Amino acid sequence: SPATATDSRRQELMPPISDGMSSKGSVVLAYSGSLDTSCILLWLKEQGYDIIAYLVNISQKEDFEELKFGAKKVFIEDVSREFVEEFIWLAIQSSSLYEDRYLLGTSLARPCITCKQMEITQWKGGKYVSHSTTGKGNNQVRFELICYFAAPWRTPEFYNRVKGYNNLMEYAKQHGIPIPVTPQSPWSTEENLMHISYQAGIPENPKNQGPPSLYTKTQDPAKAPNTPDILEIQFKKGVPVKVSNVKDGTTHQTSLELFMYLNEVAGKRGVGHIDIVENCFIEMKSPRSRGIHQAPAGTILYHAHLDTKAFTMDREVRKIKQGLGLKFAELVYTGFWHSPECEFVRHCIAQSQEQVEGKVQVSVLEVQEPVIMNVQCDYEPVDATGLKEYHHLQSKVTAR
Amino acid sequence: SPATATDSRRQELMPPISDGMSSKGSVVLAYSGSLDTSCILLWLKEQGYDIIAYLVNISQKEDFEELKFGAKKVFIEDVSREFVEEFIWLAIQSSSLYEDRYLLGTSLARPCITCKQMEITQWKGGKYVSHSTTGKGNNQVRFELICYFAAPWRTPEFYNRVKGYNNLMEYAKQHGIPIPVTPQSPWSTEENLMHISYQAGIPENPKNQGPPSLYTKTQDPAKAPNTPDILEIQFKKGVPVKVSNVKDGTTHQTSLELFMYLNEVAGKRGVGHIDIVENCFIEMKSPRSRGIHQAPAGTILYHAHLDTKAFTMDREVRKIKQGLGLKFAELVYTGFWHSPECEFVRHCIAQSQEQVEGKVQVSVLEVQEPVIMNVQCDYEPVDATGLKEYHHLQSKVTAR
Amino acid sequence: SPATATDSRRQELMPPISDGMSSKGSVVLAYSGSLDTSCILLWLKEQGYDIIAYLVNISQKEDFEELKFGAKKVFIEDVSREFVEEFIWLAIQSSSLYEDRYLLGTSLARPCITCKQMEITQWKGGKYVSHSTTGKGNNQVRFELICYFAAPWRTPEFYNRVKGYNNLMEYAKQHGIPIPVTPQSPWSTEENLMHISYQAGIPENPKNQGPPSLYTKTQDPAKAPNTPDILEIQFKKGVPVKVSNVKDGTTHQTSLELFMYLNEVAGKRGVGHIDIVENCFIEMKSPRSRGIHQAPAGTILYHAHLDTKAFTMDREVRKIKQGLGLKFAELVYTGFWHSPECEFVRHCIAQSQEQVEGKVQVSVLEVQEPVIMNVQCDYEPVDATGLKEYHHLQSKVTAR
Amino acid sequence: SPATATDSRRQELMPPISDGMSSKGSVVLAYSGSLDTSCILLWLKEQGYDIIAYLVNISQKEDFEELKFGAKKVFIEDVSREFVEEFIWLAIQSSSLYEDRYLLGTSLARPCITCKQMEITQWKGGKYVSHSTTGKGNNQVRFELICYFAAPWRTPEFYNRVKGYNNLMEYAKQHGIPIPVTPQSPWSTEENLMHISYQAGIPENPKNQGPPSLYTKTQDPAKAPNTPDILEIQFKKGVPVKVSNVKDGTTHQTSLELFMYLNEVAGKRGVGHIDIVENCFIEMKSPRSRGIHQAPAGTILYHAHLDTKAFTMDREVRKIKQGLGLKFAELVYTGFWHSPECEFVRHCIAQSQEQVEGKVQVSVLEVQEPVIMNVQCDYEPVDATGLKEYHHLQSKVTAR
Repeated sequence: SPATATDSRRQELMPPISDGMSSKGSVVLAYSGSLDTSCILLWLKEQGYDIIAYLVNISQKEDFEELKFGAKKVFIEDVSREFVEEFIWLAIQSSSLYEDRYLLGTSLARPCITCKQMEITQWKGGKYVSHSTTGKGNNQVRFELICYFAAPWRTPEFYNRVKGYNNLMEYAKQHGIPIPVTPQSPWSTEENLMHISYQAGIPENPKNQGPPSLYTKTQDPAKAPNTPDILEIQFKKGVPVKVSNVKDGTTHQTSLELFMYLNEVAGKRGVGHIDIVENCFIEMKSPRSRGIHQAPAGTILYHAHLDTKAFTMDREVRKIKQGLGLKFAELVYTGFWHSPECEFVRHCIAQSQEQVEGKVQVSVLEVQEPVIMNVQCDYEPVDATGLKEYHHLQSKVTAR
Repeated sequence: SPATATDSRRQELMPPISDGMSSKGSVVLAYSGSLDTSCILLWLKEQGYDIIAYLVNISQKEDFEELKFGAKKVFIEDVSREFVEEFIWLAIQSSSLYEDRYLLGTSLARPCITCKQMEITQWKGGKYVSHSTTGKGNNQVRFELICYFAAPWRTPEFYNRVKGYNNLMEYAKQHGIPIPVTPQSPWSTEENLMHISYQAGIPENPKNQGPPSLYTKTQDPAKAPNTPDILEIQFKKGVPVKVSNVKDGTTHQTSLELFMYLNEVAGKRGVGHIDIVENCFIEMKSPRSRGIHQAPAGTILYHAHLDTKAFTMDREVRKIKQGLGLKFAELVYTGFWHSPECEFVRHCIAQSQEQVEGKVQVSVLEVQEPVIMNVQCDYEPVDATGLKEYHHLQSKVTAR
Repeated sequence: SPATATDSRRQELMPPISDGMSSKGSVVLAYSGSLDTSCILLWLKEQGYDIIAYLVNISQKEDFEELKFGAKKVFIEDVSREFVEEFIWLAIQSSSLYEDRYLLGTSLARPCITCKQMEITQWKGGKYVSHSTTGKGNNQVRFELICYFAAPWRTPEFYNRVKGYNNLMEYAKQHGIPIPVTPQSPWSTEENLMHISYQAGIPENPKNQGPPSLYTKTQDPAKAPNTPDILEIQFKKGVPVKVSNVKDGTTHQTSLELFMYLNEVAGKRGVGHIDIVENCFIEMKSPRSRGIHQAPAGTILYHAHLDTKAFTMDREVRKIKQGLGLKFAELVYTGFWHSPECEFVRHCIAQSQEQVEGKVQVSVLEVQEPVIMNVQCDYEPVDATGLKEYHHLQSKVTAR
Repeated sequence: SPATATDSRRQELMPPISDGMSSKGSVVLAYSGSLDTSCILLWLKEQGYDIIAYLVNISQKEDFEELKFGAKKVFIEDVSREFVEEFIWLAIQSSSLYEDRYLLGTSLARPCITCKQMEITQWKGGKYVSHSTTGKGNNQVRFELICYFAAPWRTPEFYNRVKGYNNLMEYAKQHGIPIPVTPQSPWSTEENLMHISYQAGIPENPKNQGPPSLYTKTQDPAKAPNTPDILEIQFKKGVPVKVSNVKDGTTHQTSLELFMYLNEVAGKRGVGHIDIVENCFIEMKSPRSRGIHQAPAGTILYHAHLDTKAFTMDREVRKIKQGLGLKFAELVYTGFWHSPECEFVRHCIAQSQEQVEGKVQVSVLEVQEPVIMNVQCDYEPVDATGLKEYHHLQSKVTAR
């Protein structure tokens, strides 16, 4: 069984419930504890399914004990180490920046979560898999390219039942679903080990500066010492194997620990902040979407890896690999991590790293504010060109 | 004549000298006023040539009046505007970073200088063109790919005459060549509108941090106001056509002026500093070379252009253009600006910019120190891999 | 109006019918006269639409007089010249072979037809556009990427009405739709100026050799003279501008005439026969599809253009253009001719042809049989790999 | 020692000669028995070197016993199997056609020969390696990129000694070097397992048709049976592992045997004839060169592999691999087989073949004449464009 190896790290929060009624079968639901996954969970139960809720922990900050609601079983699995070693490391090796900037934090997390969800489904004999992403963005594609999902948000019966996203809270109240304390957060947040990312709401309009309260990973620079942290990072085959703080001697040698340490050190200095407009793969509301991301460890490793490469990789190999890196970023961003072509590209990129080893010293200094460049754009999407492109994009989406 | 259009901007510093002896012909020498160009000038005169010294001004800071030495004629031409419009703008449109980082400042200047030098040669009926780059680095290639040059540093007669680079000063003294006041600068500096760059000497060893005195473009941040400058940059067809300071209303609308203004505003904040190791095209002493570069205006425009692109360029066009951008960076870096393939790629990149227009607001804040990432690498080039690669590179160089 | 320029070449076969009943509006139907377009026409009438049948003539051999059935108006337009000059010439310049072999005959015809159909729709004030391709193959995508179409074959009401494709003839008989004389042709044929292509039925199984009756463009080689035809083809900017038969002096200088002449001369020798398995973009029944194609003129021009290129195009330009050619073939094959990215690639390819000019002599000899390589493959699609790939493809299709 | 494994296949034709005089050291000479290699051998002896002649047999047809002339030792090694398995198989997997046509026969043989020559040199303690290619063509680069060679044709002392290529025969006669019986062959021939190739002399001018006597691998088609040979070719991991003649049951299962069998069957039908103009990498006399090549087995395998790929390789993997194939062809053609970048590309291509397996039936029919397309081109290299390009190429060559 594919699940055996990782069983010990799985917490089964609830015992199996023996329900009298005959079930339509089990649905494994990618459960986040958010209002809408809770509503979906309830609705699927109403339809006669047994729900196995599955929470993947990739180091987002959540109180998992709060989350057990209405599921027959709840599995929580910490896949942080796998996320770092099987997904983030490849991204570092690829030196990929989607559209020249984005370190692919969210795009990397999806295939990791889905893989584990499929494993659970097979292990527990589930018949269906469900997720809660809506029909509006990239994420549905990233999930669905991997396996067939039941997607209640695209099912008229569910949609009519909850009377749209805006009435979801009403539906939740009626059915005793616990309402999150901050229902009105003016943006959506996604956090995983690789990054924390803010989209929609206030940040969506590129005319708005990111509100200061966004920068949760940034300590008040006034309190930070004004001498830099000096870190020595050692690479083997293009991945970091050791991080040492030159001043205090702190050393980490396992993937997960060194990555978390880099997040901590670089995060408090505000390193790794980016503010970008993405040219989305599929986005019904708008073909472009502004997001603010913080990826401290990823940013430091991106640069430290570039330097190690400069010293150890043949110039011509690097050029060929650079083209493969563009392809990798495109495939991961558009949700094709598990495709044959991405598997091929990943193999080639890993191969190019055979001799990428060495030690790099990085001096990490706080910056006055996390933003160096804050870009605002007077783009009016109603102009003719924009509309044409918008429709073109839609037709692409339909036909593909 | 190709020269007519720009004649008015050329200063002819010296009247033609009528010398009694018969000359072997005229050599147009790309003259920088440095010790070695002065020595070459003298040596070429010794060989019986008439020298037309040609100084191209692309906004390096030099006292041109000091430079007239021994030439039959000295032409000084300010090609700053051409450099911005015909070379830098294309680089901005291409979003090229050679090896993911380098904005190509020096690589862009070479074909600009050589073009003008060829123009002068034709205009003045010169028979030969000469330059002073040694046999060690990329620059000889960048020059020579464009036309046939006499290269005294690779001519045994010259090399033996001056008894090597180290004895150059002796030769200069003997022949009354004025010695620059700072003969012992511990690095070499190259400045043009696009960047100022420090290589060789102390910075060459990546174990050394860049000495503070390098950062000549950076004002003391303590004296800078701690509110950001807000600049609005307007793009048409992928190039900036207007820059306004939102606070004080300063506005620039010509290429050269707005570029110089960006250099000034961003420079005093320390924006655009990079510290890299290049994987050189041809480098006899070492296949890799560390350099510290400052490209304030280029860096701001690189980012502002990325944002304008995100709003206006089709996602799939962008991907194709990204591949062409990699090729462009490679061709420019290796000196092939004037090749048919680079001409083709430049045409395609310009075509991709037809709809790249909009306004971007950039907030420019000082950083505590110009360095955010200071990378040092314990690379020992005597290990087996390094040596193999070194020889491999040499054989490439020989054969290509 | 976009239609004005080409009005004179349009034949309006039937006068407008004034029908008493109120119509739901006009549908412009891409009409081929085939059984299923006739049935769709009838069914759309049953639904209350006025039908404007539009036949695009790109030199398929059909008796257009036979085709007027039940439409309110029938427009026939000969777009052969546009097809050659605006579509085929670009394909020749690109040197594209999809998956190393296929000259893209069908893929090129689709965007040509759809363009004209949209023009007619705008001109006649039609509200809808319909086509008859089923949900099974590439062609629906090629049509639909260009505009929104009503696709009856994917509409349950139509599908149930005619009780599936197999009962279509029954439906036709009941409603007086003329049955084509050869309803049982054991394969489907697609003909246009660029090629004649046979798919489905007997040829679909790659274990079957193409039946001799397929080779309709090939004269009996026994009757052909055993001396070659010698043709001289002159290129300018990468397209043929003159074809002369060296022996009899026949000369053609307009695009359409010279292309038809090449089809005739090369066709009788059996040149341009290919027998391939395509890796289809979207194909519900099977991800791969075998087809037999004959593209005589296209094949000769492909080779003659290669030779002209070898003499006139810079080696490095050619390499860059080769990459763009791969992209062009992919975009055209998958139906993206009218996308921004294909427009960009087409522009770049055309630019690369500025200096591709010269004369090429081609000696065209009959071959004993049109097939040199007849490939059969013992591929069992039920093996595990095949199934995995099949599902993978489906998921791609769904999600894209 | 790297030589041990292959020792048994090496024939040592002559015993070591103990010469009284002190030697300057041993030179391993890539010896072909041609007039110029014999002259070089003699000249190197005159200079005081001991010569170890090394003949690599890759199935060219030569009488090796005739070849022993003047060398201290002569080694003959048959590397046909290595050539097929380590070089040709990769080319088949890559589906590479340099400039859309050329199967790279000569380009593949060079790195194979040089590898073995280096092995011998190490084994026998030779100090130098020499070859006989002139300064005019691609081959010198292909040799020299691999190791440092002494190249007498580019050494003034040798060139002056023999008074140029035209006086070589005179020099040979004076020194008793056996003159080949056909000194005046009006073209140069290169034969190896992959192809036979004719260049220079009569074929060089693309206005000339290839003389009938060129087609040495083609049997008179009048005598060939007019029923096709049906061959079944089985692939595993993208390389042929079995070839069976469906009619007579002949079967071959080892690399070398099946490849030779395909050469025989396809050769007698005239399959695999190409007549091309190459855009040479380095060619002092002319930047383009016409060649006529016959690669019977290679051509059949190229097509059979394409079909197997069509059934077994994912469409998107294929596209990425196609780009790598272009790079591979470029690297092999320009002599970079042993470079790090080619090693990387070869690894990636091999990886893409993991699932390329299946059986293909090929029907091989004779064609009336080996030429289907005989292209002649009225190219006048003295026109301005040509000259510019010619010089441009030269400057590239010099500078690279």
